[in-house]
Formats: sequence, C-alpha cells, structure tokens
Amino acid sequence: MAILEKKTYKGLTEETAIQLVKELELFPVHAELTAREIGDGNLNYVFRIASEENSVIIKQALPYAKVVGESWPLTLKRAKIEADALVKHGEYVPAFVPKVFRTDEDLAITIMEDLSHLKIARTGLIEGEYYPNLAKHIGQYLAKTLFHTSDFALHPFEKKRLASAFSNPELCKITEDLVFTDPFFNIDTNDYEPELQSDVEEIWNHTELKIAAAKIKQSFLTEAEALLHGDLHTGSIFASEEETKVIDPEFAFYGPIGFDVGQFFAHLVFQVIVRKGEDREIIVNQIDEVWQEFYSVFSELWKSKGVDPFTKVDGYREVFLAKVFDDAIGVVGCELIRRTIGLSHVKDLDGIEDSAVRLKAKRAALSLGTNLILKKASIKTIKQFITTIEEFTA
Amino acid sequence: MAILEKKTYKGLTEETAIQLVKELELFPVHAELTAREIGDGNLNYVFRIASEENSVIIKQALPYAKVVGESWPLTLKRAKIEADALVKHGEYVPAFVPKVFRTDEDLAITIMEDLSHLKIARTGLIEGEYYPNLAKHIGQYLAKTLFHTSDFALHPFEKKRLASAFSNPELCKITEDLVFTDPFFNIDTNDYEPELQSDVEEIWNHTELKIAAAKIKQSFLTEAEALLHGDLHTGSIFASEEETKVIDPEFAFYGPIGFDVGQFFAHLVFQVIVRKGEDREIIVNQIDEVWQEFYSVFSELWKSKGVDPFTKVDGYREVFLAKVFDDAIGVVGCELIRRTIGLSHVKDLDGIEDSAVRLKAKRAALSLGTNLILKKASIKTIKQFITTIEEFTA
Repeated sequence: MAILEKKTYKGLTEETAIQLVKELELFPVHAELTAREIGDGNLNYVFRIASEENSVIIKQALPYAKVVGESWPLTLKRAKIEADALVKHGEYVPAFVPKVFRTDEDLAITIMEDLSHLKIARTGLIEGEYYPNLAKHIGQYLAKTLFHTSDFALHPFEKKRLASAFSNPELCKITEDLVFTDPFFNIDTNDYEPELQSDVEEIWNHTELKIAAAKIKQSFLTEAEALLHGDLHTGSIFASEEETKVIDPEFAFYGPIGFDVGQFFAHLVFQVIVRKGEDREIIVNQIDEVWQEFYSVFSELWKSKGVDPFTKVDGYREVFLAKVFDDAIGVVGCELIRRTIGLSHVKDLDGIEDSAVRLKAKRAALSLGTNLILKKASIKTIKQFITTIEEFTA
Repeated sequence: MAILEKKTYKGLTEETAIQLVKELELFPVHAELTAREIGDGNLNYVFRIASEENSVIIKQALPYAKVVGESWPLTLKRAKIEADALVKHGEYVPAFVPKVFRTDEDLAITIMEDLSHLKIARTGLIEGEYYPNLAKHIGQYLAKTLFHTSDFALHPFEKKRLASAFSNPELCKITEDLVFTDPFFNIDTNDYEPELQSDVEEIWNHTELKIAAAKIKQSFLTEAEALLHGDLHTGSIFASEEETKVIDPEFAFYGPIGFDVGQFFAHLVFQVIVRKGEDREIIVNQIDEVWQEFYSVFSELWKSKGVDPFTKVDGYREVFLAKVFDDAIGVVGCELIRRTIGLSHVKDLDGIEDSAVRLKAKRAALSLGTNLILKKASIKTIKQFITTIEEFTA
C-alpha cells in the first residue's frame, strides 16, 4: 500500500523513504535512487535521497527525543509548524530558506531542497571560516520575515489567524524553561563545569538580575509581534561564501521581534569570545552589519508597505526599533548565560580544549550576559553594544 | 420542529423565545410565561422570559448592527466568546458575573440569570447614586479574573489553549480602530461637537502624543497577558448598594491586564469630571479603592497561587504591577479622548444639557487624556494619578 495513503505516522527507513519519493514522482520514473539518514540532531530523521543528477531531503519528526529513547514524547505537530513556517517565510525571503516540495502532516514530513553543498554556519565559523554575506543576508531575512508578518504589514484578521495557526506551546515551553527560567534557578536540567559553581551561584542569588530576566521571559510569553523563527542560532543556518539558508523553524511562533534578532547576535558573540585579532574583528563587524541591514530593510518596508496609520507618524518607527533593540539585548544576555550553564551548550565554547581558556571564555559569557540583562536600558546603539562586548571579552 | 434541533441561526421572537425555554425545561411544565425584548443595544436581542415565580434572560447576537440595518455584518462567534468568557470568569468570581444556564453556538444565544433587580451602574451614577461596594467588587473582579488566566497562574499549555480559543479578531478590531486609532487621525468615524474643532486638531497634529498612543495600541495588539473582559465600562456593570455583576464580555480576548483596569478607571473619571463637592470626592475615593483592592488581591493570589518560579523572586511582583499601572494610565488617556471625540460617546458627558458646562467637561476630558498619555511615565502611584485628575478637572 502506498505510504501516503495510510494516513498514519510511521518512522521512515531508507527503503520506505525511497518508496515515498517515487510515489510522489519527485524523480524520473527510472532514476536509480540512494537514501542515507544523515540526521545528527536527536529530534528528527533526515534522509538524503539522491539520483545521479538530483537530490532532495526528507525531514521527519520523531515522536520522542532520540537521545533519551522514547521517554521524552514530543508533539509531531512541530513538523507542520516547521513546514508552514518555511512556506510562510519563503513568501518573503525565497533566497534564504530551502524550497519546500511537499509536506505531509500524518507522516510529519517535509520534503525539501537538498543543501548539502553548504555547511552549517556554526561548524564553518568554529573552523575559522568567514562568510562575507552572512550578516547582510540574515539582516535581510530578519527584517523581511518579521516585518511582513507583523501588525504593521498585515490586516489584523490575518495577523490573528496566523498567530493562532502558529500557536506552538510545546516547543515554546522548551525555550521558556531552558532559556528564560532554569539557568536562573538551582534546577536539575542545568549543566555546568564544577569550576563555575561560584559564578553560577552568583547568578542564582542575584535578585535584580532575576527580576530583569523575568521581564524578558514575560515578553517572550506574551508579546505576539511577528512570526519568529524561534531558534535562530548559527546551527540553524547553512552557509557558503555566497549563499545563506535558514533551516529548522520548528520553534516558530508569534513572539517578540527582538528574540530572533537577539538570538542571532548571541551566537555571533560566542565567536567574538573565542576568536582573536583580525578574525575577531570580522565577527564584531558582522554584529554591526546585521543590525544596520535589519534596521535599513525594516525601515524601507515600514515606509513602503506599512498599513497601520501610525506607521505614517514621524518618529514612531525609530521608537519601535529602539524597543526591538532593547528586547534583543536582553535576549543576548539570557542566551549567553543559558548556553554556558543550562542544558544545551554550544560547541563554540565547549569545544575549546584548553580548560583554562575554556573557563575564561565561559566566565566572559556569563559576566557579559549578566551585564547586558542588567544594563540594557543604557545600551541604546549598536556601537554601545559592541563596546560592552569588547569590555567583557577583550 | 424543536428550535435547538434546527442547528441553524434564526433571530428569536418573543414567541419562539418562550418555546425555547420550554424545550429546555428551564421552568415547570405548566408555568405561564411572558416574554419581552428589552435590549437597548444595537448588536443583540435581549429577551426577559418570566413566570410568576422566576425569570431568565436570553441574549442573542444579531448577525449585523441594528443601528445601520443589515449593512454592518458582525460575527456570531462573539456570542460564543461572551458565553465562554462568562463561564471562565465565573470560575474565579461567581459572585460578580451572571449565572449561565445554557448556551447554543448555532443560535448564538446565552441563557442566563435575570439581573433586572439591579441597575446599570452608569445610569445610577449619572443619577447621582453611590454604590458603596462597586470599587471593592470590581477591584476583586479584576484581580481574580486577570491573575487566574495569566501565565503567573496557568500552565503555559493551558494559557496558550485559552489564548487561541478566545482569539477575537472582529471585536478587537472595533477597539483597535475606535479607541486606539481613529480619534488620533482625521477619520470619518469621529464624531465631535463643532466647538471642539481646534482641540481635536491639536490632537491630530501632536506627533509626540500620537507616538505614545501608537505604543499603547501596539500593547493592545500584541500583549496576551490575561483573559480580559475587553469592554469594562460602567455600562457593562449591573449594581445595587450590595451587589455588582459584570455583563457583556463579548470583547473578551487575551490582552494586556492594564486595559481592563484602565477602562474602568476612565469611566469613573467621567463621573469625577461631571460631579461636584462631596459627590465627586466619593468617586475619587473609589478610584483609589479599586486600585488598592486590585493590588492587594492580585498580590495575595501571586503569593499563594503563583506557579512560575519567578513569582517567588522578591520584588518582581511590584515591578509587574507597576507595568500594569503604567499600561492602565495610558488606556485611561485613550478612553477619555475617544469617548469625547470618537464614534462612541458616554452619556455622562453628552447628557449635560448646558452647552458651556458640557464643552468645559469635554475639554477637561481631552486635556486630561492627552496629559495622561504623554506623562504616564511620571505617574507612578494612584495618588499621583488622582492629583493629575484633580489638576485637569477641578
């Protein structure tokens, strides 16, 4: 029986993955196909199906987290959210997301463009590569996806329809817990090197910091400004010198615009922390560039496509973008802290072999993160942000 | 054929309204029933069905606005929102909402407790009455309905389920337009006395005011903090010396807590504007009392029922309640302005017969409203709010 007709979820194998693309006639009838499971995450299968001339990717959500066997059940609805977000964002930035050929909600799959010729940006950056277009492209990606899905661009009925369609409670809860809650409390999920014990306790005992973090969490919980990617770190980006493709929007939901901006900033900051000299300056300049590009493209769209009468009021755009910047700086702080002492780390830091260097880098991440959360009201420009980064990571 | 079985919408008549309550066996089989349409709004039928011993109210949503014939179609879904909100809020404040006996989505009806022994608070207040329990009751109503439906009290899955279930785009748009947009622009829906032309133009030309209003509108559009009533003016409240019942939550949706608080404040402010001497002091004291009661009950609930770990962080509660107060003051400003120059007015002002007195009252509403929107950052306590009211309305 044809796989799609069964209408029930079943994990694909390399064999059934080939059968599926044949059913869908994604390749010529007599093409010789090979399939390989290339996933390295723990939440999904990723199959690459190739003929001599062509290839596609099938991503299938698993109903549990692989890393802990079947003990951590996960909603398959995230596959639909991911596919729908790729399609929705693709309307505005077709160059920066993979093409989607087919989705199936029952099987929890998305069949999409194969991007194997590109490298995951985090991997390349850790290897010291430089992606000259990365900052400009992500600045455009952020401006276009976020402006076009906001109340500034959409009829309020369409905005609210999308906000309900992209309601994503299970994946949001992961962020609510791992980014905005657990690292600030003595909670089991936290994971940090024993040498950081006193740094960590300083955070747990810092009431002013926790109040500031609570406000950032509340913004994430309540502010439905635009359709976010929701997990925009450098591991969610394929890149080459020319191309940039943003993948994996399974955390997509309506949230504060500054969240996506801040998360991307944070993962560039990790590179600033681990790099030296000119290599470091390149990344510092990219932080500046992503904001400049975001600001300028968002502003152009606001002027040319704003539908709310208030978009015509002189000065409101600057006030709104200052709010986005403030939100973003707070998110950078939370992300720096949580990737250092929370459940989910980054290879940028954990991969440093020399333990003295690694601990120094982690302490820099913690003190910069703390400072950004506490002092964000006084960091009003990208230059001041960069000065603050330099101050804590030099 | 039985009315409920038809499963299609049809406007009730006094005859079919009686038939309906008989089908539902809401009265003894042989009770002699009378029905009377007592609605004075333009969006709904309201039937009072009575026997000698007992009575109920049937509220039925009309698929269009009566005032303009059938030319302004309205979603019948609002009847479901209203019924669901009465039931949800009733879980937390059974004493302050009518009992719901039966709802039917197809017919767009809610059958509920008859409150004819009470008077609409606005009517009583305009007649100079004093409701000694009104402020305390509404303070409790606000604290309980808003705390219990917020992220501070609910599991995030349940909060997001409710937020989607109460998505209410059509009714929200009325508020977005009539409260937060139209009064600040030269738009046809506005309605003001010709003598106010220069006052109105001052508002339209006041860029700083419009930017501040845009931020308040953005909060209404994006901040899903709690399940609001959404239209909490004194015309949505039945009262007597002892009792307080909040009705008509058809505008209910997940929005900023300060919206409900601010709207109620605003309609007390209209009474402060039109009253004199001791009668006026009574209302000023009620503004103080509603905030004190809200603050204290919300705080108790936060301490005893807060589920988010951050509710245990010293000082966060005060910071959050300061944000609610700031939001509320902005909403008061918008409500004062829109009820004076927008589409929908209040009898408190329009009912003043002496035109000099009426215009003076309206100008006070406009200048106080403008000042609150512009200066809310410097109004941090209920005492400062009251001082500001006195300053512009003495």
